[in-house]
Amino acid sequence: MKGKTIEFKSKVVIRNTAAIGGKKESEGPLGGYFDRRLTDDYFGEDSWEKAESKLQREAIKKAIQKAGYMEEDIDAAFCGDLLNQCVSSHYAMREFSIPFLGVYGACSTMSESMLVASLAIAGGHLKNAVCATSSHFCSAEKQFRFPLDYGGQRPPTSQWTVTGAGAAVLSGVGSGPKITAATIGSVVDMGICDLNNMGAAMAPAAFETIKKHIDERGADYDKIFTGDLGIIGSDILCDMMNREGIDIYAKHEDCGKLIYDLKSEDVHSGASGCGCAASVFCGYVFDELKKKRWKRILLVATGALMNASIVQQGESIPTIAHAIEIEAEEE
Amino acid sequence: MKGKTIEFKSKVVIRNTAAIGGKKESEGPLGGYFDRRLTDDYFGEDSWEKAESKLQREAIKKAIQKAGYMEEDIDAAFCGDLLNQCVSSHYAMREFSIPFLGVYGACSTMSESMLVASLAIAGGHLKNAVCATSSHFCSAEKQFRFPLDYGGQRPPTSQWTVTGAGAAVLSGVGSGPKITAATIGSVVDMGICDLNNMGAAMAPAAFETIKKHIDERGADYDKIFTGDLGIIGSDILCDMMNREGIDIYAKHEDCGKLIYDLKSEDVHSGASGCGCAASVFCGYVFDELKKKRWKRILLVATGALMNASIVQQGESIPTIAHAIEIEAEEE
Repeated sequence: MKGKTIEFKSKVVIRNTAAIGGKKESEGPLGGYFDRRLTDDYFGEDSWEKAESKLQREAIKKAIQKAGYMEEDIDAAFCGDLLNQCVSSHYAMREFSIPFLGVYGACSTMSESMLVASLAIAGGHLKNAVCATSSHFCSAEKQFRFPLDYGGQRPPTSQWTVTGAGAAVLSGVGSGPKITAATIGSVVDMGICDLNNMGAAMAPAAFETIKKHIDERGADYDKIFTGDLGIIGSDILCDMMNREGIDIYAKHEDCGKLIYDLKSEDVHSGASGCGCAASVFCGYVFDELKKKRWKRILLVATGALMNASIVQQGESIPTIAHAIEIEAEEE
Repeated sequence: MKGKTIEFKSKVVIRNTAAIGGKKESEGPLGGYFDRRLTDDYFGEDSWEKAESKLQREAIKKAIQKAGYMEEDIDAAFCGDLLNQCVSSHYAMREFSIPFLGVYGACSTMSESMLVASLAIAGGHLKNAVCATSSHFCSAEKQFRFPLDYGGQRPPTSQWTVTGAGAAVLSGVGSGPKITAATIGSVVDMGICDLNNMGAAMAPAAFETIKKHIDERGADYDKIFTGDLGIIGSDILCDMMNREGIDIYAKHEDCGKLIYDLKSEDVHSGASGCGCAASVFCGYVFDELKKKRWKRILLVATGALMNASIVQQGESIPTIAHAIEIEAEEE
């Protein structure tokens, strides 16, 4: 393993966040943390893709408003999503005149966008930035697996793509939980080719990034949140860490296991999608950080970097994980 | 218009670059500037997508080598491409253990990746980074327009996606042409829905970014290189600038007009694709900058941010342009 953990040279705070959940997500255990809860996943649009874009747009608007800013106070937006050519982000950003830099890390996009924005803010080049991502169950199934109308059976390893979005406003001034350090992940591919077992594919990337980060920064975190490893990927990650002598069983949480009631909802191995880490972080985690339930956490969103046609060409699934360290605001 | 041009707070130099051209590109007027000239666009692979990924991988390897570095000297890679979920970049990066941040700005990706890397380097958070992108005529036609086998007729406004890749190694130390300032573009959509007239769609984004940049930094550039506006988009851009009282007719060049011999090759309105700005900048422009043919240039790669299915849903094409200002090394 190579590459160094980055310690930000000046203050980066998360001024505020906003989260929107789809119908199923809003009825789940974290529904109360969302700023907006959909009752219809079309969100008033005539396609799932347009609905997803609206999710992201509304999350961005709400986060800027909750941070006490106007659109013109934001120096740049860092967004991306799962749709081909990231159109969810692009059509969302079309409604703003904010300078925009597209990022893509599949389901790792929420931590990637905050990492890249932190580099720009801590370096003194931007003052305020908004970071956002989204996903939609229906647009993702259609694009990555089967059209919903086909009624394909989902294997037990499969995960349920979150319909939701999250946005966070980062700033070099003011108060809020601080982003203090980050580790950029490398691409890891352990040879898994099953589009219905993303958790297993992504766990080694999460392992590598967390291991690198902990080697440099210590393991003193109240919680380590991964993005969407789900039940299977989470087990693999904790076991891999354990074999290295690092016990994270008690402090590890996975956004993909938190957002649905895994016992009563038919989501098999848990949740996935850019919107999973985004809505869970920008809803639940950020709210609890502000309440100082935890002092110091690590957010490690994970992404599977394939597309459907390259897997049909026989390729396995490359994955990545980016870690950002966040400290609750001091008293 | 809003958003400020960024002046980098400390030195960012382009240590070296590498460019690879496909068969058609290598036979064109800039063929002599490429580090590698393909004779077969499959590049020894069994699919166009895998060939494109290899183009990017080989460009990255070559750029790192030409910069006098080893892979382990590179702190991060900033790459992206046109393929769904940027698989060209991801499968290229799978062969390296370099920390990787995916960026996506369609055909604006070359200037976006150098802009984002410059933010990280000038802020003191990274020392060396590699920036790369690629495109492939066959994979792009299949994905955005028609399968090649269909033999669809191309209208006169259409552009020919470049088969090629470029990579640049940026650093906070050492010598080379300097990246001194940049302007992040906003998303611009003037209502064009024609997937065969990208130049016209992108010209207003180029206009807005160049106008913003010049308003703050002056117009003292020896050349302003846009990415892939082609013949039609270039005319629109120069006319739009002229109406604002800024005459760029003589100093404007478009990578999409330079890479092919427009008189003898059947490319209609010129070239396009991420690999256009990438291979022209990393080949021709960088070589001539090193020879000090120009003292100060502006590189403004432009991107069309749609996908085929959202346009089929009736949406118009959002576009973007990012500008980076580059100065030749001082004597």
